[in-house]
Amino acid sequence: MTDASGLSRRGLIGSVGAGAALALAGSGALYASGREAARQPTGTTHPFYGVHQAGITTAAQDRLHFGAFDLNPSATREDLIGLLRDWTAAASRLTQGLGAGTFGPLSGPYDAPPDDTGEAIGLDPAGLTITFGFGPSLFAGPTGRDRFGIAARRPEALNRLPHFPGDALDLAASDGDVCVQACSNDPQVAVHAIRNLTRIAMGRASLRWSQLGFGRTSSTTSDQVTPRNLFGFKDGTANLRAEDTAGLDSHVWTAPGHDPKAGWLDGGSYLVARKIAMHIETWDRGSLREQETFIGRTKAEGAPLSGGTEFTAPDFALAGREGRPLVDPDSHLAMAHPDRNNGVRLLRRGYNYVDGSNTLGRLSAGLFFIAFVVDPRTHYIPMQTAMARSDLLQEYLRHVGSGLWAVPPGVAAGQFVGQALFS
Amino acid sequence: MTDASGLSRRGLIGSVGAGAALALAGSGALYASGREAARQPTGTTHPFYGVHQAGITTAAQDRLHFGAFDLNPSATREDLIGLLRDWTAAASRLTQGLGAGTFGPLSGPYDAPPDDTGEAIGLDPAGLTITFGFGPSLFAGPTGRDRFGIAARRPEALNRLPHFPGDALDLAASDGDVCVQACSNDPQVAVHAIRNLTRIAMGRASLRWSQLGFGRTSSTTSDQVTPRNLFGFKDGTANLRAEDTAGLDSHVWTAPGHDPKAGWLDGGSYLVARKIAMHIETWDRGSLREQETFIGRTKAEGAPLSGGTEFTAPDFALAGREGRPLVDPDSHLAMAHPDRNNGVRLLRRGYNYVDGSNTLGRLSAGLFFIAFVVDPRTHYIPMQTAMARSDLLQEYLRHVGSGLWAVPPGVAAGQFVGQALFS
Repeated sequence: MTDASGLSRRGLIGSVGAGAALALAGSGALYASGREAARQPTGTTHPFYGVHQAGITTAAQDRLHFGAFDLNPSATREDLIGLLRDWTAAASRLTQGLGAGTFGPLSGPYDAPPDDTGEAIGLDPAGLTITFGFGPSLFAGPTGRDRFGIAARRPEALNRLPHFPGDALDLAASDGDVCVQACSNDPQVAVHAIRNLTRIAMGRASLRWSQLGFGRTSSTTSDQVTPRNLFGFKDGTANLRAEDTAGLDSHVWTAPGHDPKAGWLDGGSYLVARKIAMHIETWDRGSLREQETFIGRTKAEGAPLSGGTEFTAPDFALAGREGRPLVDPDSHLAMAHPDRNNGVRLLRRGYNYVDGSNTLGRLSAGLFFIAFVVDPRTHYIPMQTAMARSDLLQEYLRHVGSGLWAVPPGVAAGQFVGQALFS
Repeated sequence: MTDASGLSRRGLIGSVGAGAALALAGSGALYASGREAARQPTGTTHPFYGVHQAGITTAAQDRLHFGAFDLNPSATREDLIGLLRDWTAAASRLTQGLGAGTFGPLSGPYDAPPDDTGEAIGLDPAGLTITFGFGPSLFAGPTGRDRFGIAARRPEALNRLPHFPGDALDLAASDGDVCVQACSNDPQVAVHAIRNLTRIAMGRASLRWSQLGFGRTSSTTSDQVTPRNLFGFKDGTANLRAEDTAGLDSHVWTAPGHDPKAGWLDGGSYLVARKIAMHIETWDRGSLREQETFIGRTKAEGAPLSGGTEFTAPDFALAGREGRPLVDPDSHLAMAHPDRNNGVRLLRRGYNYVDGSNTLGRLSAGLFFIAFVVDPRTHYIPMQTAMARSDLLQEYLRHVGSGLWAVPPGVAAGQFVGQALFS
């Protein structure tokens, strides 16, 4: 049952632009033109130790398991340090394809539990990275008590994100003392990592919430194909890339002196997570014209509606019929553009998710947004405040989860993640 | 940070058996010995049309999106036929890498919604199969009314599964008039399929529940490596395989005359789905010895505890210390073995799942069990009844979802799935 009508209907989409027409000419109704291009090789191992933590500028892996943990009410400073030490050891092993513990899943005393749960036996790490972050509540718990003797070293920028217009947060699936981002090209490997870290935390910390993401929505290196979100559009075309070291230094890594109280965070970053439910059923009822207007880009090529190809800079001044700008000033492209945000740029690392379906018979689906930024006060909060008010896309979005964590710098061999915070 | 201790500790696991020791000798603490072996190539396309539906004996793909739909209360026989016709057309296209509709995601009238949602643009089908089944409620709704004029043709074997001991079912995530199993090696492709079929159903049927599975737990062809479940054990070693055509004829495909009322189902099968939550935190506290005893196999190799390698037949009579059988008669291996189940065999096609975490700080994780059987009355209900009573594993399992569907035979070009039911 082959359909040959795709090509003949190209005339109908004249206003999509040359890029889209070209893409269609090559693919017709068969749209599998970039065969496997968006998928990562699985046989990759990333170093755990380094100047920065892995999992930030690392080429975005295809799958995510994100966990947010709370320290147990009785946990002491020593418990926290011990946990970070144990987690560091486990992460340094898991990312290299070793078991979570020194015995591994198949060895050790036969009458004791294995120190690895075993479901990743036979799987390589598939690019696994494990990235840790510290939330504001780690520095002062709900009662304001300085549980771990670190309250004085809380960075000024590390506060719960403010309430944005339209937020409908599930507080039980927001925030958390410590976050762990596990990314891999094999979901079983990412799940295995969070599971084993959860197990190691037993008695000291427990999982507050966790989220799986099945498909990356960002590219973080220049050679990655731009993936698509659940609106069907390419996402993150203008993302900061690993190769742009100057851009990373300005917009991602905290520099020495950024916060006199928080020298331990030098060379780190901030991780913003937002679980954004997407009303995909409503979106799917919009015309191609509306969808492209809201995004500000063509659906096929991802080119700005002002013309060109995916990576052409948008021309916000260029006007079309009746003198209206081709790129709507309230489009997602315009709202998120550095020109509209004091020049700030983000390193995005989000994932598509589906959590089954809801009682209305709709998929519980959307975007688990992750961004790494040098300072959320300049690099996220103003942009999201503006977007929540004006972005045309907001009609189709609902923010249901939120979190902000300070991401310590990378770990040197023999140290543990965040060690400088305790010295 | 390399660990060299794995090999020297082999002496500790003397009782694991030769197979396990051999596996360890090769891998040490680094257990990524079967690098990528468990993963499927993505560049595969399976035919949609055929004698049987695809997605049953098809080499089990790595990822799953399963949807259960209910026809709307006002839906007529014509609506149901129209829906099956539209779904067939869409499935025949999606599985071949085409868009859900004839225009595709990028074509069609610019002022109308695209007839495909677009998030699979650039992705090949990655082995996508779409398999349809009809639930008992399709034949007679909750009120017993014969909504679609097919009640008289309901197969005798097609009833809601009985309540099994220990069942703790979420009824909102059980059953459904029609089920759709979408399997692909790319989760975004499987999600895209269910989403577009949901969209096509609008006004006629809506999604009752849906489930993602991130890792296959069964092999269905002889050349597939046996995967691991979230207990860390190989699962489905004794599974029926596509190459065993005599076994399939006896245990999977309904033969002509199997049910005089239901000739439309000849060449079909029954799909049993069970969402089985696993208490993995408790499991992880058990010793390697206990875990192996409960499963009846070694964790490393998956060999029966009576000796040999993975595919060696278990010897239930072989006794060890104190005259006890090496394979516990209540182990999962023993309980599920054909010798204990009147010789019946299943074609299993399950998936590991994680649905985030629960309020106790534990992963909501387990097995989404799928099996295709010739008759659930002989091939599932007796086995599950016995298992629910005696299987040592039950302590770690809770059945939280359930469904049974009759799976029509394959579709010929120009026909729609289940067409014979309406003629």
